[in-house]
Amino acid sequence: MSDRLRVTLLAGGVGGAKLAEGFAALKTVSLTVIGNVADDDVFHGLWVSPDIDTMLYTLGGRINREQGWGVADEGRRALTVLQELGADTWMFLGDRDLGLHIYRTERLQKGDRPSLIVRDIAERFGIAAQILLPTDDRVQTRVRTGDGWLAFQEYFVRERCTPRVLELRYQGIGSAKPSPEAIAAIAAADLVVIAPSNPLVSIAPILGIDGITEAICATRAPVLAVSPLIAGQAIRGPASAMMDTLGLQPDVKGVAGIYAGIAGSLMIDHQDARHADAIRTLGLAPVCSDILMPDRAGKVRLASAILDLLPSQAEPGNP
Amino acid sequence: MSDRLRVTLLAGGVGGAKLAEGFAALKTVSLTVIGNVADDDVFHGLWVSPDIDTMLYTLGGRINREQGWGVADEGRRALTVLQELGADTWMFLGDRDLGLHIYRTERLQKGDRPSLIVRDIAERFGIAAQILLPTDDRVQTRVRTGDGWLAFQEYFVRERCTPRVLELRYQGIGSAKPSPEAIAAIAAADLVVIAPSNPLVSIAPILGIDGITEAICATRAPVLAVSPLIAGQAIRGPASAMMDTLGLQPDVKGVAGIYAGIAGSLMIDHQDARHADAIRTLGLAPVCSDILMPDRAGKVRLASAILDLLPSQAEPGNP
Repeated sequence: MSDRLRVTLLAGGVGGAKLAEGFAALKTVSLTVIGNVADDDVFHGLWVSPDIDTMLYTLGGRINREQGWGVADEGRRALTVLQELGADTWMFLGDRDLGLHIYRTERLQKGDRPSLIVRDIAERFGIAAQILLPTDDRVQTRVRTGDGWLAFQEYFVRERCTPRVLELRYQGIGSAKPSPEAIAAIAAADLVVIAPSNPLVSIAPILGIDGITEAICATRAPVLAVSPLIAGQAIRGPASAMMDTLGLQPDVKGVAGIYAGIAGSLMIDHQDARHADAIRTLGLAPVCSDILMPDRAGKVRLASAILDLLPSQAEPGNP
Repeated sequence: MSDRLRVTLLAGGVGGAKLAEGFAALKTVSLTVIGNVADDDVFHGLWVSPDIDTMLYTLGGRINREQGWGVADEGRRALTVLQELGADTWMFLGDRDLGLHIYRTERLQKGDRPSLIVRDIAERFGIAAQILLPTDDRVQTRVRTGDGWLAFQEYFVRERCTPRVLELRYQGIGSAKPSPEAIAAIAAADLVVIAPSNPLVSIAPILGIDGITEAICATRAPVLAVSPLIAGQAIRGPASAMMDTLGLQPDVKGVAGIYAGIAGSLMIDHQDARHADAIRTLGLAPVCSDILMPDRAGKVRLASAILDLLPSQAEPGNP
């Protein structure tokens, strides 16, 4: 039994992976990530899992640091041929990345459980953290725009998040069963953290799976969410605009409204300190910090700041 | 209706593609290739068709000229990741090549007929020749060695053709239906040529498909085979050793024995001129020429030499 602090992090792609990297750098932490599968889709017959792969590439030290997603030293030879053959190639899939998708797809076709496939990839990539799927079933975010329903990647990549989002649906979520590993990781956690990921398209399709929110509510461990918005803006991605068109307040108060009843506290940036009372009114304890993670130091700083909130206990090495 | 000479070429991989390139360079020729699918196999869940792809890459001007197979300016990023993930990667599949396999596999999974997929690839690659499959069904060469049965690529690539071949089987050939395009191309040909490909693993699984040999025997067009052996040696590949261990004479007489009753004439190298009588005794008309194709000029020379054998007719530009 490890005496390290068991942190279970609910996370989407880039922002979630940054905080995961911060926790993974702390020797006092045993990190488990529950990732998002609702932006998965099939391209060229291959199963692609962008958020999970961003997590794998980030924690495995393979990420393209300039982009924040994709693999370093990537090529586009395969995609070039697919394009020459007339395939739709708006979804950038590099050669290394395709190696992973080919591997995953073959194992899925053999009937392997998605959770086990990710576990094996993480192990092969030398990742110490556990990366779990919230479900082994298919849950896929669909986005309604003025032009009708789009698959998430169509909205996110092909349309570059420009259409107004009128409605979101998480197809399959009603019948998706939670993975036993995810439920166990929440129950065993000393701390549950909701990463600064898009609450609507990264975190909601995790929390909406039957049993996940219940497990979070049942744990005696503190549950802390980190705002993905600073001064009403997402660091990256469409969270703010999406919240706005869906009738939510596109700021930390809107975030607090989403996580009320699930998280006990909400970490916000110092810039949003004036909203602390409003957050408290919504039933969450506001915590101000510097939540921007521009570099590795920023990631570690945020992870450490979160641990600092815990009641003092035997935490060797915790600043 | 074209007034060009309709040449239908039965061909395997590298050797067949060389002669195809020779014919394709002749303005007087309308070339149709019937390729070999019996060395196809599935790698990492993707359908790979090495002989057909060598033909596509050669006629499409994409071939790696040094190797004679594979694509020029190729990468190995995807394969590197597959290897890191623990997959068997003895079959070299480059990044560009994988783009093609991904495309083919997706279309096969959609239920598209293999012949149409190849037709579309050839069109996209700007290939003027028709590349046909002998069948849309699965025929796969199996090789019995001292260590038991191997898939053809296991024998050919993984084991580098080193095991003694004790028996060959063309799995599925008994029930495979010929493609209507292949039958029509044989019937419409002014000349049928059997390329200098391995008679046992490239040509036999074409000729063995119900209806193909019958169509060749029924045509009034001349049928000429080019020996894959010169002085008892294959230019490339295991044809000679394979013929030997299977009890066939590993020289042009053995080749004549295989094609007796199918081809009317056998083109052999000047070096094998002394076997002309023996070939005649087997019922084939021997024709001596320089059949080595070390470069483009050699390919065109051989194709032209074959055309020169035809009874003189209106062949503008034919030397």
